[in-house]
Amino acid sequence: MSDDPLVIFTPSGKRGRFPVGTPVLTAARKLGVDLDSVCGGRGICSKCQITPSYGEFPKHGVSVIKDALSGWNAVEDKYDRLRGLPEGRRLGCQATVQSDIVIDVPPESQVHKQVVRKRAEAREITMEPATKLYYVEVQEPDMHEPSGDLERLQKALKEQWYLDVAGSDLRTLQLLQPALRKGKWKVTCAIHTAESGSSHVMQVWPGYYEGSIYGLAIDLGSTTIAAHLCDLHSGEVVASSGIMNPQIRFGEDLMSRVSYVMMNPGGEVELTRAVRESMNALIVQVSTEAEIDRELIVEAVLVGNPVMHHLFLGIDPVELGQAPFALASSGAVSLWASEVEMHMHPEARLYILPCIAGHVGADAAAVALSEAPYRSDELVLIVDVGTNAEILLGNKDKVLACSSPTGPAFEGAQISSGQRAAPGAIENVRIDPVSKEPRFKVIGCDLWSNEDGFEAATLSSGITGICGSGIIEVIAEMRLAGLLDAGGLIGSAQQTGTERCIVDGRTNSYVLHDASTSDGPLITVTNSDIRAIQLAKAALYAGARLLMDKMGVESVNHVTLAGAFGAHISAKHAMVLGMIPDCPVENVVSAGNAAGTGARIALLNVSARREIERVVHEIEKIETAIEPKFQDHFVNASSIPHATDPFPLLNKIVDIPDVSFNVKQSGEGGRRRRRR
Amino acid sequence: MSDDPLVIFTPSGKRGRFPVGTPVLTAARKLGVDLDSVCGGRGICSKCQITPSYGEFPKHGVSVIKDALSGWNAVEDKYDRLRGLPEGRRLGCQATVQSDIVIDVPPESQVHKQVVRKRAEAREITMEPATKLYYVEVQEPDMHEPSGDLERLQKALKEQWYLDVAGSDLRTLQLLQPALRKGKWKVTCAIHTAESGSSHVMQVWPGYYEGSIYGLAIDLGSTTIAAHLCDLHSGEVVASSGIMNPQIRFGEDLMSRVSYVMMNPGGEVELTRAVRESMNALIVQVSTEAEIDRELIVEAVLVGNPVMHHLFLGIDPVELGQAPFALASSGAVSLWASEVEMHMHPEARLYILPCIAGHVGADAAAVALSEAPYRSDELVLIVDVGTNAEILLGNKDKVLACSSPTGPAFEGAQISSGQRAAPGAIENVRIDPVSKEPRFKVIGCDLWSNEDGFEAATLSSGITGICGSGIIEVIAEMRLAGLLDAGGLIGSAQQTGTERCIVDGRTNSYVLHDASTSDGPLITVTNSDIRAIQLAKAALYAGARLLMDKMGVESVNHVTLAGAFGAHISAKHAMVLGMIPDCPVENVVSAGNAAGTGARIALLNVSARREIERVVHEIEKIETAIEPKFQDHFVNASSIPHATDPFPLLNKIVDIPDVSFNVKQSGEGGRRRRRR
Repeated sequence: MSDDPLVIFTPSGKRGRFPVGTPVLTAARKLGVDLDSVCGGRGICSKCQITPSYGEFPKHGVSVIKDALSGWNAVEDKYDRLRGLPEGRRLGCQATVQSDIVIDVPPESQVHKQVVRKRAEAREITMEPATKLYYVEVQEPDMHEPSGDLERLQKALKEQWYLDVAGSDLRTLQLLQPALRKGKWKVTCAIHTAESGSSHVMQVWPGYYEGSIYGLAIDLGSTTIAAHLCDLHSGEVVASSGIMNPQIRFGEDLMSRVSYVMMNPGGEVELTRAVRESMNALIVQVSTEAEIDRELIVEAVLVGNPVMHHLFLGIDPVELGQAPFALASSGAVSLWASEVEMHMHPEARLYILPCIAGHVGADAAAVALSEAPYRSDELVLIVDVGTNAEILLGNKDKVLACSSPTGPAFEGAQISSGQRAAPGAIENVRIDPVSKEPRFKVIGCDLWSNEDGFEAATLSSGITGICGSGIIEVIAEMRLAGLLDAGGLIGSAQQTGTERCIVDGRTNSYVLHDASTSDGPLITVTNSDIRAIQLAKAALYAGARLLMDKMGVESVNHVTLAGAFGAHISAKHAMVLGMIPDCPVENVVSAGNAAGTGARIALLNVSARREIERVVHEIEKIETAIEPKFQDHFVNASSIPHATDPFPLLNKIVDIPDVSFNVKQSGEGGRRRRRR
Repeated sequence: MSDDPLVIFTPSGKRGRFPVGTPVLTAARKLGVDLDSVCGGRGICSKCQITPSYGEFPKHGVSVIKDALSGWNAVEDKYDRLRGLPEGRRLGCQATVQSDIVIDVPPESQVHKQVVRKRAEAREITMEPATKLYYVEVQEPDMHEPSGDLERLQKALKEQWYLDVAGSDLRTLQLLQPALRKGKWKVTCAIHTAESGSSHVMQVWPGYYEGSIYGLAIDLGSTTIAAHLCDLHSGEVVASSGIMNPQIRFGEDLMSRVSYVMMNPGGEVELTRAVRESMNALIVQVSTEAEIDRELIVEAVLVGNPVMHHLFLGIDPVELGQAPFALASSGAVSLWASEVEMHMHPEARLYILPCIAGHVGADAAAVALSEAPYRSDELVLIVDVGTNAEILLGNKDKVLACSSPTGPAFEGAQISSGQRAAPGAIENVRIDPVSKEPRFKVIGCDLWSNEDGFEAATLSSGITGICGSGIIEVIAEMRLAGLLDAGGLIGSAQQTGTERCIVDGRTNSYVLHDASTSDGPLITVTNSDIRAIQLAKAALYAGARLLMDKMGVESVNHVTLAGAFGAHISAKHAMVLGMIPDCPVENVVSAGNAAGTGARIALLNVSARREIERVVHEIEKIETAIEPKFQDHFVNASSIPHATDPFPLLNKIVDIPDVSFNVKQSGEGGRRRRRR
């Protein structure tokens, strides 16, 4: 055993002996400890911060003296003055080992750091992006050894970072010579490693580049396009935004867009142009929000249903509109973002997750990646609520998937006061069962509408409409307050005892908010809104039931609700509406935009791409369009649950008034009694 | 030993036993015999033609009976009727083995066929292109196995061709579904295999595609851009063309173009645009000549000197204009042709050979590939004559390379009657030593100007000027006819005895052709033309001498003369001019456009790309700009050889009149006597 000092790293527990004077970063690298560095140990990037621990460590069998590391040096001093180094921290490339030492690597100093997801039950994302920054010092050219500047950069990357870089993009080659000279032969490179394993230099900055590079995780929905802009070093989401899919003008649901193309040969070009234009508007939106140059977005990951996937790629979706619903490609697609006219970094890469089947797209694959039913011990039902609902049912033994055409109602389209989830949209609603008076929350404000300061807080955004999660809540609350019967009819003022219920010919409505005094819109829920939601939820429910039939189960014990639109969906309200099979309410979790999260996971972790590419092959696909039982389930699921089976678990937690309103005799008083 | 029939293939000699009924193509594939097929044995492509041999083959130990193969069948009959099958030929996929048989695979049925080069001493090119055609039958989609069309195509390529195809280009994905349906699930694919080994489908045709695909081998010179359009299956050159490099307006030689960029920041953009526009004009020119759609050109290989290489790629060449002459990249460059705005197939690939050094470019690498000095037992000097001369000296032990700035005179620029090698240009000249009357040949006509029918044959092209090889010949012939002295002065009519020599002030000239009667130009050679050629040849000679110094040799025994301009250079005339060191004239060979040939080799054979990428690292580069001896050699080499050393071998074959003309005293008679 050598007399060299023992160096122990926590939390990994990796340990080894190193000669006195070894920099901590060097020791970490030799032991394979996950300690970050962009500048390669030159005291520039400060990414290799570590925390030495002193004292007795019986667990590790060492005693650490005060001078176990070399003293604070000029480089650390300068860095501390300019940027500030947290108390107790040292720079791993500056501090050298003097005697036995225990060194903690804080999470933010790990390359493969964990990005914590908000939900407790969700697994963390380990940082392993495809594009990373490297600072290198390149040998100057020499007439007697006439290799090119790129070849000397490759040599430097090999020597200083053990990286085999195959080459550079053409644009980088055009920028390389001035950058090397401006940076006095020191440059920072962004290096992208493709799925094939080959790496390319895609950007070069003179000297040490202080900034970051970014990636975009995009959920391309039929109604909404949502994007998260992520820092590719920290994993942090620096901006999130959404935009309406402009293809809606060609048809609200997917099949009507496919029909548009069938009726208008070449129409796919218009649809492709429309969605690509919006994609660029969204890119401007998120980069403006994050205050970054959009050319710093070096990568994107996109998910979407098959029709959107094909239209975005410029592939005629006509085959998806007719059996056997053949995809042009079911595999993951890797290409240059410029090939689909995305205006980000000129050489940015785009990765599109694989599709599961002709009706179960890359969005479903993304939900699978985010919620990982294939890793679950328990059987879990996952429904991703959108214009097309993606439904997964399974556990680690088997996963089934299908897609159900719910239409855009859940996303606020086809709803009279509906809107996209954006500031000003009502996202939570409660109706007092006695007074029938509503209170609500709007996106962008934490107060309820009946709380002090609400009006002032919503002055700038206004109260503009109801978003998808709001519509679910308001209808469920109307049902719970006895304003709505199981058939979906709204009672009259006389029947319900509130002037908020208005009968106008055959159209009944409920006034949720009258902002006409403050120049805002009148926000109501109409019978036709309710009808649209009923059709949507029946399709959702029927899809879930079909998978349960195929799996041979009568009930599920765990349900995950996901949806791209706005806030998380309220489990209770979704159940009151009858969107999902009966289930213990405490086991119904809301996952937010799981497809978007799946895209984000694939953006930040390339192993996750390999994982989902493997998993999609193991998922069993059910085609709802050819399953007669789907129609049966659909027809049976259109009414809103009432006080009978098959919702015994729901009925344990809520009292649903057993009311019935007959629209033809609106003058007649409805029967009305509270159950139990 | 089995009782199955023995099948012997010639010329490979491969043999094996196969059950009765085995198709010949199947037997060939199992034995690894190089027998072509695009349709995979379906009797469509007819590429697998073979010639069975009958009788006794004592050498092979077999006796072949008349019915050794199955009878002529309906597929062969149909093919024979439609296209004609040569006498004795069978289709290898139709004819089945019945008893012992000897089968010859004719050269045109081999995949790796040899492309014969015109010169006897040149090695053949083995066909091994990066892009090939494959005909496949794809499984139809099935709702219960929802893989994409591309994935089923990949599966078919794997099963039917043992090809692992990574994916397809986006455009192909857009075309795939209609092509599969139109072709009833049978398609022909063009598949490109990149340097990394990964293959992509780059084009798909419904059914069996009867046509061919093409590649372009481009020599991008300072003065001339030359291109060969090749059939990527047969290797045949289907069109060759050239165009002037329009950058000449920014400077005739490379350094003046670099200076232009230095003086006009951003000027490289203009230069890049100009050369790319001409490249596209050239693409139109060759595809028109070959009568093919330019979108069938799926690949290009480009060679050029470093400045042209950088300007074409859009890289500022300023570093190449100053020590240490650093290349942006010295390695081979692979990219999409569209990245440099070449209008061919939209997904066409471009491969650019590696550069050897800052002044010794991809053109020199191409000459090395074509002439392969690194495989030669004998020491060989290779000079590629252009605006920059590339010079290689070496054998299999060691190869030296340098570049010498000869200027554009050898390409007909800076020459009063000079022009690019094109129909109408004078390319060969003879001057009668007694009468001093010239005769000549022009490009596009095989007759000498004094032969019957010459006038009629050149009526359409006219006689328009002198190309590079013509200028070398006419000056050498003037010297041999005593019209020119060693200092490069043209004698007067009085001194030379011919009225074709005209003195006009200080400018003397020789009238080669007076076409003014037929509206053509007056074609003369002037003292300043001769001066330009003297400077050019002095630079060439000095470069060659410098390499000989570095190699430590006083003479060379083998010289290869190459040049992009027009016809082959006459060895004798080049020696009379003093372009190259003294050498036995029978060992001076003319290689034509060796750089273009090198590009063609790399186009048709991907192994050759690997070979030259390896070889350039082993070539020792000499930088003429920093070698003082280069200047000394240059100064000493400016006069035209006369009857003294250092040209004893030259003087063995020609009598050079020892004349001297003094321009100042043009009235005075020159000394004139025939040597020996």
